Amino acid sequence: MTTTPLTTTPTVAVPAALDAGRELLLPALRDAVRRHLGPEMARLAEYHLGWADSDGNPTSSRGGKLVRPALSLLSARAAHGSAEDGVPAAVAVELVHNFSLLHDDIMDGDATRRGRRTAWTVFGVPPAILGGDAMVTAATSALLEAEAPGARSATASLTAATQRMINGQCSDLAFEQREDVTLEECLRMAGDKTGALLGCACSLGADLLGAEPGLVDRLTAFGEHLGLAFQLVDDLLGVWGAPELTGKQVGADVRVRKKSLPIVAALNAPGAQELRALYFRTEPLDEDDVRRVTDLVERAGGREWAHAEADRQAAAARRSLDFPGIPDGVRDELLDVAGFIVGRQS
Amino acid sequence: MTTTPLTTTPTVAVPAALDAGRELLLPALRDAVRRHLGPEMARLAEYHLGWADSDGNPTSSRGGKLVRPALSLLSARAAHGSAEDGVPAAVAVELVHNFSLLHDDIMDGDATRRGRRTAWTVFGVPPAILGGDAMVTAATSALLEAEAPGARSATASLTAATQRMINGQCSDLAFEQREDVTLEECLRMAGDKTGALLGCACSLGADLLGAEPGLVDRLTAFGEHLGLAFQLVDDLLGVWGAPELTGKQVGADVRVRKKSLPIVAALNAPGAQELRALYFRTEPLDEDDVRRVTDLVERAGGREWAHAEADRQAAAARRSLDFPGIPDGVRDELLDVAGFIVGRQS
Repeated sequence: MTTTPLTTTPTVAVPAALDAGRELLLPALRDAVRRHLGPEMARLAEYHLGWADSDGNPTSSRGGKLVRPALSLLSARAAHGSAEDGVPAAVAVELVHNFSLLHDDIMDGDATRRGRRTAWTVFGVPPAILGGDAMVTAATSALLEAEAPGARSATASLTAATQRMINGQCSDLAFEQREDVTLEECLRMAGDKTGALLGCACSLGADLLGAEPGLVDRLTAFGEHLGLAFQLVDDLLGVWGAPELTGKQVGADVRVRKKSLPIVAALNAPGAQELRALYFRTEPLDEDDVRRVTDLVERAGGREWAHAEADRQAAAARRSLDFPGIPDGVRDELLDVAGFIVGRQS
Repeated sequence: MTTTPLTTTPTVAVPAALDAGRELLLPALRDAVRRHLGPEMARLAEYHLGWADSDGNPTSSRGGKLVRPALSLLSARAAHGSAEDGVPAAVAVELVHNFSLLHDDIMDGDATRRGRRTAWTVFGVPPAILGGDAMVTAATSALLEAEAPGARSATASLTAATQRMINGQCSDLAFEQREDVTLEECLRMAGDKTGALLGCACSLGADLLGAEPGLVDRLTAFGEHLGLAFQLVDDLLGVWGAPELTGKQVGADVRVRKKSLPIVAALNAPGAQELRALYFRTEPLDEDDVRRVTDLVERAGGREWAHAEADRQAAAARRSLDFPGIPDGVRDELLDVAGFIVGRQS
């Protein structure tokens, strides 16, 4: 049994598992995009993934951090397979994740992602809708073509997680129009939007190998708790920020009056009248208002609750891995990646 | 062997297979929507499918004609299964078809479908994007949960057909910006956009039952040829119309300068200079111009070619069913539905 800590304390070291995974993942991802997508859809996907500029010329970028697919490779190893065995699961998870980013950028009207123009602003909305459709469809193909005993089960798991992610995004959009969002609803939304796919990423390699359901369930629980811890940390940064490290402006989520977890916790706390009046008024919030809201959220206990809940979720994630079948080394690497995600500063 | 004719001559009789199929299909479709989609996404899907108004109250509408899923039920019977055996395939095909309609309506900016407001105009673009995502994801779930030997193969076939459909829509959008679309490209686009899913619909029930590949291939070919014949007839109506029967205005496709099959055939014919100059000019076309273009397309042979090609594709579809394993009664019903599709007036 390992003693690697998993806390929400900031860390900057990139875990070895991410670098090791990248060598396996990038060629497999490129291959999947080229084989399963048509040429025009592949061009859009390669731009979105950071591998090509808008004319299709290769960039020097390494693309995203590939955290989810690295977890899928580890999950194959947790089931005593090789990292290679987990590649189809990893590719499928990364395609689903990027399908959601592509469509979310359209829905949210976001013009930039990772310092580049979003795909819909470069290629137009219709091709970006189709590009997302093509990526989620390719994910199923990539998984089904795997010569592995659990291909059907893994595809069903990924599909169910995708459906939950869609429901989470739907709730998130619906919350924008509502003043009565409860903390329970908000936690369920975060579990669906962030937790479901991360839970799937952490178990899909094992599922694909036909691992025993007990192990698959533990790995899923690990990822779901991790996803909630990550979302809580992300939401804390959205209010109190760390612009020099994350690029997130202090008060970014307050300015757009987002119903994020610490804010919803505060809005539902006793004595939140002033906060509610300010947050739900029709006029825009100026910089003084943003500071006042931030202060009121903290006074109502939103910050403290979110920190404590992130720690609880991180601890629950860690406990999920107390399962005798998982090799100690793999458990350590899973906890390394988890620590990187929830303590991330960039 | 049957002697049922399959021509592109107009017919109005609704085949018995469509009415019989509806009794099986509607409850299964409703069940799939309710089980696999979240409540908000289900509400949007039920509106889009014509079963509910925008508040979620049931309508008296029977929804669409359910042609594709009826073909999937027949394909299970072609493989000596029961219609019931084909239900998961039928449900999955209809979900994919409606995913494409939902997203296409957004991309094309269409405000009405089947005489009702399109879903994106009622619920907004973001929920309609998510609704399509939810339906294509539910299709995979519906198929994978089937207790049938070919569930994995059928899911892979449906996914490949979906990817081709997406590529076809992508090409169709790209054609709008181009003056050099060849007839070959246009036929490939129609094969992808319309033929692929219809080919899949006609074979998926057999595939799900683990039928021999020879039969699955023949049924796929039947549906692909049928899809092209259907598209050619649809494109002919888009230019020469039959407004009193179809709701399509004479010249509808000419007015928006669509690159449909008869028009692309004419644009690539020798001596099409006047047609090309008129069709590709920047100023809008007035009613006289629309009539002149229509006349020039006919003179260049676009109408005659499209009629002849539709008949050739219908004949090829019919020949695809000359396969000894298909029960004669099922072949007759497949040809009945095919005749309804390509000869349809409403």
